[in-house]
Amino acid sequence: MNNNQTAAFPRIIIIGGGFGGIQLAKKLNKQEVEVLMVDRHNYHTFQPLLYQVATGGLEPDSIAFPLRKVFRSQKNLNFRVADVLRIEPEENKIITDIGDYSYDYLVIATGSETNFFGQKEIEHFAMPMKTVPEALNLRSLILQNLEEALIEEDAERKKALMTFVVVGGGPTGVETAGALAELRNHVLISDYPELDIKSLRIFLIEGGSRVLEPFSEEASAKAKQFLEDMGVVVYDKTRVNFYDGQKITYNDTETIDTKGVIWSAGVKGAIIPGMDKAEIVRGGRIKTNTYNRIVGYDNIFAIGDLAYMETKDYPHGHPGVAQVAIQQGKQLGENLLRIINNEKAKDFDYYDKGSMATVGRNKAVVDLKYWKFQGFFAWLTWMFVHLLFLVGFRNKAVTLMNWIINYFSYDRGTRVIIRKFNRELMKEEAIAK
Amino acid sequence: MNNNQTAAFPRIIIIGGGFGGIQLAKKLNKQEVEVLMVDRHNYHTFQPLLYQVATGGLEPDSIAFPLRKVFRSQKNLNFRVADVLRIEPEENKIITDIGDYSYDYLVIATGSETNFFGQKEIEHFAMPMKTVPEALNLRSLILQNLEEALIEEDAERKKALMTFVVVGGGPTGVETAGALAELRNHVLISDYPELDIKSLRIFLIEGGSRVLEPFSEEASAKAKQFLEDMGVVVYDKTRVNFYDGQKITYNDTETIDTKGVIWSAGVKGAIIPGMDKAEIVRGGRIKTNTYNRIVGYDNIFAIGDLAYMETKDYPHGHPGVAQVAIQQGKQLGENLLRIINNEKAKDFDYYDKGSMATVGRNKAVVDLKYWKFQGFFAWLTWMFVHLLFLVGFRNKAVTLMNWIINYFSYDRGTRVIIRKFNRELMKEEAIAK
Repeated sequence: MNNNQTAAFPRIIIIGGGFGGIQLAKKLNKQEVEVLMVDRHNYHTFQPLLYQVATGGLEPDSIAFPLRKVFRSQKNLNFRVADVLRIEPEENKIITDIGDYSYDYLVIATGSETNFFGQKEIEHFAMPMKTVPEALNLRSLILQNLEEALIEEDAERKKALMTFVVVGGGPTGVETAGALAELRNHVLISDYPELDIKSLRIFLIEGGSRVLEPFSEEASAKAKQFLEDMGVVVYDKTRVNFYDGQKITYNDTETIDTKGVIWSAGVKGAIIPGMDKAEIVRGGRIKTNTYNRIVGYDNIFAIGDLAYMETKDYPHGHPGVAQVAIQQGKQLGENLLRIINNEKAKDFDYYDKGSMATVGRNKAVVDLKYWKFQGFFAWLTWMFVHLLFLVGFRNKAVTLMNWIINYFSYDRGTRVIIRKFNRELMKEEAIAK
Repeated sequence: MNNNQTAAFPRIIIIGGGFGGIQLAKKLNKQEVEVLMVDRHNYHTFQPLLYQVATGGLEPDSIAFPLRKVFRSQKNLNFRVADVLRIEPEENKIITDIGDYSYDYLVIATGSETNFFGQKEIEHFAMPMKTVPEALNLRSLILQNLEEALIEEDAERKKALMTFVVVGGGPTGVETAGALAELRNHVLISDYPELDIKSLRIFLIEGGSRVLEPFSEEASAKAKQFLEDMGVVVYDKTRVNFYDGQKITYNDTETIDTKGVIWSAGVKGAIIPGMDKAEIVRGGRIKTNTYNRIVGYDNIFAIGDLAYMETKDYPHGHPGVAQVAIQQGKQLGENLLRIINNEKAKDFDYYDKGSMATVGRNKAVVDLKYWKFQGFFAWLTWMFVHLLFLVGFRNKAVTLMNWIINYFSYDRGTRVIIRKFNRELMKEEAIAK
């Protein structure tokens, strides 16, 4: 395929191979369209399990699936690893680091990125966890902190190395804090007999009134109880002001000495420059109509985390979860075919399948529409659903095997520092990718 | 444990957690000695399978095993992640990047590192494969070359991107060339329908008279035939002179355009500075007596790839293979206890269990003392033995599962570029680690 070949069929470019992009592309299989998918990685990232990579429970390759493999039998799709630098809507083309590509229809499915709310110091010193390299950096940092603590003679510094603060009490924050507690309680205690590992402290700080705020109050309360049972100190209604790499400041005057801050306090839409007419709303999302067409444009669409769509049931937009992306991707696939055939597009109607988060072994919370439950059965449900949505048989098999081994051995077998994390040298690069 | 605490028991420092170091340390379990193991990584690397990580067949975490876990029940051993900068034999101490440590007995089990024979250009541009990060860099390079070839319009450059040259026909070179051929024949052909993947060329260049030179002539001939059947071009009696990142020169005047050179042409002992009295022989190995004591020193020992020991059966030293390291490690453990108890140390006598190498599915060669065989049964034997020596149940389980899935699907599921390889920025770092 040449870059700007005259296409026999309309050309649809999809930017991003996440949950939404994949579902959309699959809907276009065997249809009379030419599809180009562009992603900056050659793999799909299963973001819900990144925290397990960061805490040594899973291999990175288990949650990364080669995008070429997803589409190997889809004849009308080509794939490129590229960074999209800019969109030129007037020219109907995208500018990437490997060349320009023309489109008839463009779908932006770039998802969200970590939001540091403009706080440069926090961005520099705190660890985000939205990509596989970031999760690996965090894994290295956690283990390096403990190795350093072992030889640190200054008591204050030793304490800071053994203190981890997770900022943000959404599912990612809750799951990360829980996984850290399990790592401490079951693994590190025998790995580091020279350390008083019980003095390893884990804090979870949430700005809102409760952890898992979008969940039911029942789920929030139970999740908090689970965390506290496992030894996590949970602060809610607490705002983080500053972090300088040594000391985190909250509620204006309080501080905790820590060399490990994990930032899961917010995301923003991963916007690509060039769409000047688009309306950017709170959280860096792009306003779309009720079938994901970006307001201000005819042939540009946004789905998933990036899209801000007001509907009757969701007057302030949809939650930034995989299910929204999946359902919007599927429906936009059908709608694009309707639009190409001059038929009327159907409005999006989100079907909320429920929410779930896991805190530790046998400890999870599940909110379904008519049924809320917590504990062992919720934990089994969580595992089943995550295996189901994990892409690829190999990844499912390896993940399940790791979970079974971890469950019975109380172990986290992948606590290896493959590449040392160097705060000065690597952070910028990690953020950039 | 303080750095220079007066020990109740003699203190033995082991530098390196490879095959030899681990076996040695285990022999000292529950004995009246204090053991300190130092390694620059927090994991043991199963080097024989690095090539499978590089070619997308295995996760890195499958062949890396946390050293703290190996020794979690060994009460008389402490472990440190550290780079040993220098040995001070007069002071009986080692100088590391995290401090100094005193010893009564020192064992250097640092193994070997890639030998570029002083050729700086080759060192800069060719890919070594002795560590997990290096194998991951190579995996990224292979995949990036193909992604680049896809968009390259210059035919010459495209050809260079699709040409891989493996230098060195020992087991690593043969296995890597074979794995590349399988990747091409079974995986890339469907991953890159836009490329004429059959024009992807793989060369194996060997300076000696045949590949697998230390093996039987029967094994060498069969390995070469296997490789050629799979489409690898094998050049023996061919010396590589130069590589500038674009063009590899061999036999003084011949050249191949290639953007992917894998260097498995030689290793040298990973020597630590400071032992001025030690005798360094060919291949950067340190001369030891017949029970691994370094000639010139009383209480410093070397085992494995680093040690050069002449015996009646091995007048020119032992081969640089895992079995030598394992057997020397075990025996030195026993000998150290004898030496501490003023008993006479026993001479090392290597028991050669045989050699094996795998070329592809159902294609391997095995040389035992009285039995040489090739093909499917050799391949099964190779897998069984490698699983046996892979450290840890989780690693064995995940590796076996990957092999089963790869076998039946003809797939290599981990062909993901987790971190892009940047020749300019990352090479030095990769070599340094």
